[in-house]
Amino acid sequence: MYATIITIGDEILIGQIVDTNSAWMGNELNKVGVKVRQIISISDTDEQIKSTVKQLINDSDIVLITGGLGPTNDDITKQALCQLFGSELVVHEPTLEHIRQIFAKRGLPLTDLNALQAEVPSNCEVLHNRLGTAPGMWFQVDGKAVVAMPGVPFEMKAIMQEHILPRLLAISGGESIVHRTIQTFGLPESFLAERLTEWEAKMPNNIKVAYLPNPTSIRIRLSSSGPKKELLELEIQKQVEALMKIIPNNIFGHEDDTMASVVGDLLVEHDLKLAVAESCTGGTIAHLITQQPGSSRYFTGGVVAYANDIKISALGVDGHLIETHGAVSQQVVEAMANGVMHRFSTDYAIATSGIAGPTGATPGKPVGTVWVAVSSRHTAVSQMFSFGSNREQNILRSSVSALNMLRLLILSEKKMQ
Amino acid sequence: MYATIITIGDEILIGQIVDTNSAWMGNELNKVGVKVRQIISISDTDEQIKSTVKQLINDSDIVLITGGLGPTNDDITKQALCQLFGSELVVHEPTLEHIRQIFAKRGLPLTDLNALQAEVPSNCEVLHNRLGTAPGMWFQVDGKAVVAMPGVPFEMKAIMQEHILPRLLAISGGESIVHRTIQTFGLPESFLAERLTEWEAKMPNNIKVAYLPNPTSIRIRLSSSGPKKELLELEIQKQVEALMKIIPNNIFGHEDDTMASVVGDLLVEHDLKLAVAESCTGGTIAHLITQQPGSSRYFTGGVVAYANDIKISALGVDGHLIETHGAVSQQVVEAMANGVMHRFSTDYAIATSGIAGPTGATPGKPVGTVWVAVSSRHTAVSQMFSFGSNREQNILRSSVSALNMLRLLILSEKKMQ
Repeated sequence: MYATIITIGDEILIGQIVDTNSAWMGNELNKVGVKVRQIISISDTDEQIKSTVKQLINDSDIVLITGGLGPTNDDITKQALCQLFGSELVVHEPTLEHIRQIFAKRGLPLTDLNALQAEVPSNCEVLHNRLGTAPGMWFQVDGKAVVAMPGVPFEMKAIMQEHILPRLLAISGGESIVHRTIQTFGLPESFLAERLTEWEAKMPNNIKVAYLPNPTSIRIRLSSSGPKKELLELEIQKQVEALMKIIPNNIFGHEDDTMASVVGDLLVEHDLKLAVAESCTGGTIAHLITQQPGSSRYFTGGVVAYANDIKISALGVDGHLIETHGAVSQQVVEAMANGVMHRFSTDYAIATSGIAGPTGATPGKPVGTVWVAVSSRHTAVSQMFSFGSNREQNILRSSVSALNMLRLLILSEKKMQ
Repeated sequence: MYATIITIGDEILIGQIVDTNSAWMGNELNKVGVKVRQIISISDTDEQIKSTVKQLINDSDIVLITGGLGPTNDDITKQALCQLFGSELVVHEPTLEHIRQIFAKRGLPLTDLNALQAEVPSNCEVLHNRLGTAPGMWFQVDGKAVVAMPGVPFEMKAIMQEHILPRLLAISGGESIVHRTIQTFGLPESFLAERLTEWEAKMPNNIKVAYLPNPTSIRIRLSSSGPKKELLELEIQKQVEALMKIIPNNIFGHEDDTMASVVGDLLVEHDLKLAVAESCTGGTIAHLITQQPGSSRYFTGGVVAYANDIKISALGVDGHLIETHGAVSQQVVEAMANGVMHRFSTDYAIATSGIAGPTGATPGKPVGTVWVAVSSRHTAVSQMFSFGSNREQNILRSSVSALNMLRLLILSEKKMQ
């Protein structure tokens, strides 16, 4: 069963926003056995909406549309579909009542604009939008489905989960799609591919391999589809096990794991506490850690020591170390890690100090120079990195490299016990 | 002049990555007078690549393709275009030499896979990829252009800036597209639209208005196109000025401003220092501030006080306050702000304490309850927020609301001087 996703709105075409809805939808559709053939972003003009829907309905079983259902004048999806399917707008009473309740709950008057949200084409099935005022609409056209949803991500997600995905699961029938993703760190893409040449050559024809680099990891994805889900999963599992023997030290996680979630799981597993002392990463390590639900179980807190005198006063770094070696040095970063570990009474600590850029370079220390230390009650490990000239990338790479160093330190200490 | 963007790769269709390249390209193309008609993501299969390029070349003057040029087996864009345009792969010597130099500089051996990157279709013009091994390729087909680039964002951007955009600017001829964006905070979309009904009604027909909500702001975008750029800019400027009179307190910035960049500019302008004490936001405020280049001029640092005893030891909060009122309270958050302001010797401070979720709710304090305080040497302002149940959103909204409170406090104190 095939789907096409259409996102409507000039904001995507002129580059004002990035379309994150489609990626989420693609992922969820795969899980219910629906393959996405194309994702298309078009302008919010009447003519483009009608011609695109008309054309794409031939190529797939279901066309999913997001965007252009808001209360403002630039939102015209509803009107365009109404014309395309020869229908007219009528008030949908349950939706009007729902909108009234939303406004009453917030203690706000019901505006005319918002009441108009309850008007829907007479020939569609209304999909209740529990979290917002613009309902979803399901049109049945010559045995195919055309579904329109609001573009607000959490409203779209609720409508997909509550109304669309269960229905698609019921009608997609049989065919399963299985993906497995392995997260690697530390090997550039071409080196990884060279190391895996033989493994790839032996891969069964029905399993597809893809390398997906991002700024902080390279994911290896194995995909297969067929009628028997269990069989597909078994075949892929065999390949994953072979892979783990080839690059055991570079694999840090699976599927949607992040370096921060993997480190969090390790800390929980061994009942350990962590604190951070961040200079060049400026709070990003703490931010990545505390994005994880439940991080208060293992994360005590940290100090963002951006100014040198804060490194001294809040972390107890010896001022002479900074004078002698500079703030971006092994000595200072180890003192920062030790300082925060003792002051925050934790088992482990991470510290960073570097030159994120674009300014701040000194002779011998160009932009991108970063020192990272991780310390435990038994030892400290530190490393210098030379990243590039992009500030955001330097901050992110430093943060993830630091978390990886902590991961390796915990693993080595727990293995020795 | 019209463009279509094609991104190639299953990773987008199955939702494994979000396509950020197209948004950047759309934005840059607009600046040189090229309108993007569609953005299409397709699978990396030979047949889909060929049929999509063939079809879309009719609808626009230039087709820009990204992705599928990497060194691994799943990358087949080059082969597909070669077949489509009846060409054959030949070694491009300057590219081979460039690849050799890249590997020599890194002290790495040149692999066979990487040497293959120097093969290009014989009938294309090679666009030098200064930052990577896969070159761009420009095909001229029946008066239209088809251009392929690697999908790695910084490589694609360099090729666009150095080779493609200057050429398009030269041939797009005359037509200008002008966008202006106003960043607002604090009014939901429908209330904003109601307040602006009259302003919108008086808008000249050639100016298009769009409302673009995101989790932390609503942007109002004015767009117009025509032969005279200066005239368009003047017309739009008049509308912006009228808008600023209607909602002066809700406009915090323009174009790509973020709340953190606006606050940073204010601190620089008045030569002020800031520190933060974060509980529920867990480093996110520091992270947003230090994303800004030059933030060390005004940001001294902060404490992430996730555990209660860190609020006491690192910020000097009175333990009785926490016992009596709870960590999520006006009293504690004001004490945190004062504590970090004095310990870090700054002019202003921000503090947060709340329940980001999914766990941690207590009777009377559901998930989403957040206290924020901002303090100066003269006063402290605090406010309680009730956000929703989504952890990431609660953290982000708390952070941006806190920065907005600081913005308003600085503005009011500087106005009184």
